[in-house]
Amino acid sequence: MDLSKTGLIMVISGPSGAGKTTVITDVMKTIPGMKFSVSATTRPPRYHEADGISYYFISQTDFDELIEKDELLEWAEYAGNRYGTPIAPVLQSIKNGEVIVLDIDVQGALAVKQRCPDAIMVFISPSDPAESERRLRYRNTESEDKILARLEIARKESAYIGEYDYLVINDIFSEAVRCLSSIVIAEQCKIKKNISEATQC
Amino acid sequence: MDLSKTGLIMVISGPSGAGKTTVITDVMKTIPGMKFSVSATTRPPRYHEADGISYYFISQTDFDELIEKDELLEWAEYAGNRYGTPIAPVLQSIKNGEVIVLDIDVQGALAVKQRCPDAIMVFISPSDPAESERRLRYRNTESEDKILARLEIARKESAYIGEYDYLVINDIFSEAVRCLSSIVIAEQCKIKKNISEATQC
Repeated sequence: MDLSKTGLIMVISGPSGAGKTTVITDVMKTIPGMKFSVSATTRPPRYHEADGISYYFISQTDFDELIEKDELLEWAEYAGNRYGTPIAPVLQSIKNGEVIVLDIDVQGALAVKQRCPDAIMVFISPSDPAESERRLRYRNTESEDKILARLEIARKESAYIGEYDYLVINDIFSEAVRCLSSIVIAEQCKIKKNISEATQC
Repeated sequence: MDLSKTGLIMVISGPSGAGKTTVITDVMKTIPGMKFSVSATTRPPRYHEADGISYYFISQTDFDELIEKDELLEWAEYAGNRYGTPIAPVLQSIKNGEVIVLDIDVQGALAVKQRCPDAIMVFISPSDPAESERRLRYRNTESEDKILARLEIARKESAYIGEYDYLVINDIFSEAVRCLSSIVIAEQCKIKKNISEATQC
């Protein structure tokens, strides 16, 4: 019986203000080998950002090449910069038995699911959409326009919850952490019906 | 968004000596509304057994009637007595949002799965089959013949692990408890793809 830990891809989406990053970061403290995927981007690094840790900072040409060679799980453009998830490090993590977390929007999440049918799809959200708005405003880091744009995105994205495997309600932080860590542990106990399918991506 | 707890049927199998009952009982302490299904049996009660708690003690005629009316999820005969799982209390538990646990052998488990495709199938086992044997002998409650018979059943049953959803390895008790409780919590966070299917049984 093979008792090595199963590597997992976890795709996590949810509205801005849902507390995704805080919940995920807390779960990571208790689950060894669980970490964020590092995205590639054409955006220049900010002063505190290290290459290969915050992002892989690459040129437009290199990004084009990743797309051409089909080496991105998903990619998108925001404000003139491109962001994407390189496949190679994700596959390496799975091989190492790690839990690799992709914190991405619904569009990217659906692209990953299509490519990796074994990806675990988790949607994190407060039960009341108004709570996301309250948290966004409380953060006080963005203009009213940006907040309204984020809320509109959240409204549209929530229509896709049915495409996800799990819904983690983040009303009580400790409960959300307990749910997400349970999902990871349970998925590691899952009996793979088809090993070849489990390793494909 | 409906936040009521999802009722679940959990079918748990595993070799004698795997520590199933101890693990399940410990998990029940932390998960409200998780309880064992009560079986019906034609065996006469022992002195400490209360009707409706240990078992529903019923006559051969009543058992025949349950079978005829298709009101048992599964049933089997051991040593001249019949044992079965009545459907009605299981359905009531699910309706109440409870997690109802059926601790049954592989044959019964497969029958339940066929009838209730949403049942969560969990196999509990030590990683080394020799460990079950050691625990059975340590219990010192059964004759050598019975121990050998149990080990033979365990060997045959392990061929069906692929029919289960989850495998909980009980080498370290606290780890097994953590896995099983995670499975329950994770399953409660699952997004039902098809509500009508979720309630069918």
